[in-house]
Amino acid sequence: MMDHPFTLKISPERGYLELFSNHITRHLSAMRNQFLDKDAYESILKKEDVLVYEVYESKRPEIAGELLHGISIVHPGKVGDEYFMTKGHFHSELETAEVYYCLHGQGMMVMETPEGSWTVEAFNAGDLVYVSPRWAHRSVNTSLIEDLIMLFVYPGNAGHDYRTIERQGFRKMIVDKDSQVAIVDNPHWISPEER
Amino acid sequence: MMDHPFTLKISPERGYLELFSNHITRHLSAMRNQFLDKDAYESILKKEDVLVYEVYESKRPEIAGELLHGISIVHPGKVGDEYFMTKGHFHSELETAEVYYCLHGQGMMVMETPEGSWTVEAFNAGDLVYVSPRWAHRSVNTSLIEDLIMLFVYPGNAGHDYRTIERQGFRKMIVDKDSQVAIVDNPHWISPEER
Repeated sequence: MMDHPFTLKISPERGYLELFSNHITRHLSAMRNQFLDKDAYESILKKEDVLVYEVYESKRPEIAGELLHGISIVHPGKVGDEYFMTKGHFHSELETAEVYYCLHGQGMMVMETPEGSWTVEAFNAGDLVYVSPRWAHRSVNTSLIEDLIMLFVYPGNAGHDYRTIERQGFRKMIVDKDSQVAIVDNPHWISPEER
Repeated sequence: MMDHPFTLKISPERGYLELFSNHITRHLSAMRNQFLDKDAYESILKKEDVLVYEVYESKRPEIAGELLHGISIVHPGKVGDEYFMTKGHFHSELETAEVYYCLHGQGMMVMETPEGSWTVEAFNAGDLVYVSPRWAHRSVNTSLIEDLIMLFVYPGNAGHDYRTIERQGFRKMIVDKDSQVAIVDNPHWISPEER
């Protein structure tokens, strides 16, 4: 299997679990300090440690030339005004890109560079988002009803740096403002000058 | 644009041309000696230099870390018994993979290694095909009615080696045999021992 080509039938109905070797689940408890509204966070957590998102990935050698790939599913929901989202990360090998292709739902890709440049790309099913090398990225599900399902592909040697974002946050947050999706400043963001 | 993330709305209705920087078209005349039945080839060509397939691709730096990506469209048709297909190639940087995701239609990915191992993966819309490093690959449209449309992603430094396949061919061909899709030996294939 490892060095032989293969086909994955990407269909929720047929069951992702049978197809991908790795299944990563992120419950709310694993996302402490990622959402702005601490009270809302603790209040939800006290009731249930909800599943925020999950990732199914093929196991491949983590080396240049290979392409790691799989699907991510961000479930619908909010913590306070903030939509459910992935933790977000830089690649450890900073100069590596990532391709996302939206299979279902709607969302925004929140991105920023180590120097503090930011951008947000909105997308729907059928859209491809190119995350250029150097850009940290986080997927946000801006629907409160449907899953956001994305196919992703990134270089085998990219690696994940979650810690930088855990520490400094993203500059922008995606929130529900009077039932509209809004991009707002994150007041807890640590700018390059303050690091 | 070059180093800034971007979104592509992959939809035939909205027009690929507006979205991708490169548009490559392969007409029948550019595929001389790729199909087995020379008489059928010349006979079609005399009538019309038909468009066999086309590729829309984003322009990105051709370096490791970047991901080249786009869509390929293989139109339906046959030359003799052989279904329309892409030229097929090795990556110049042999140890690089490629991810294909089928957006529409049905097809087969014909693959082989420099040592002569071969495999064929059949797929439909919604399937992902992983072409592992070292495998030459060719997409074949096994429908005679619909386009085969695929999203592809490969490392920026992969490069294309078309000449090896032009010279030695693929070991296997995909043909219409009594209205069934069949995998048959290519009698013109040059094996590693004969090269």
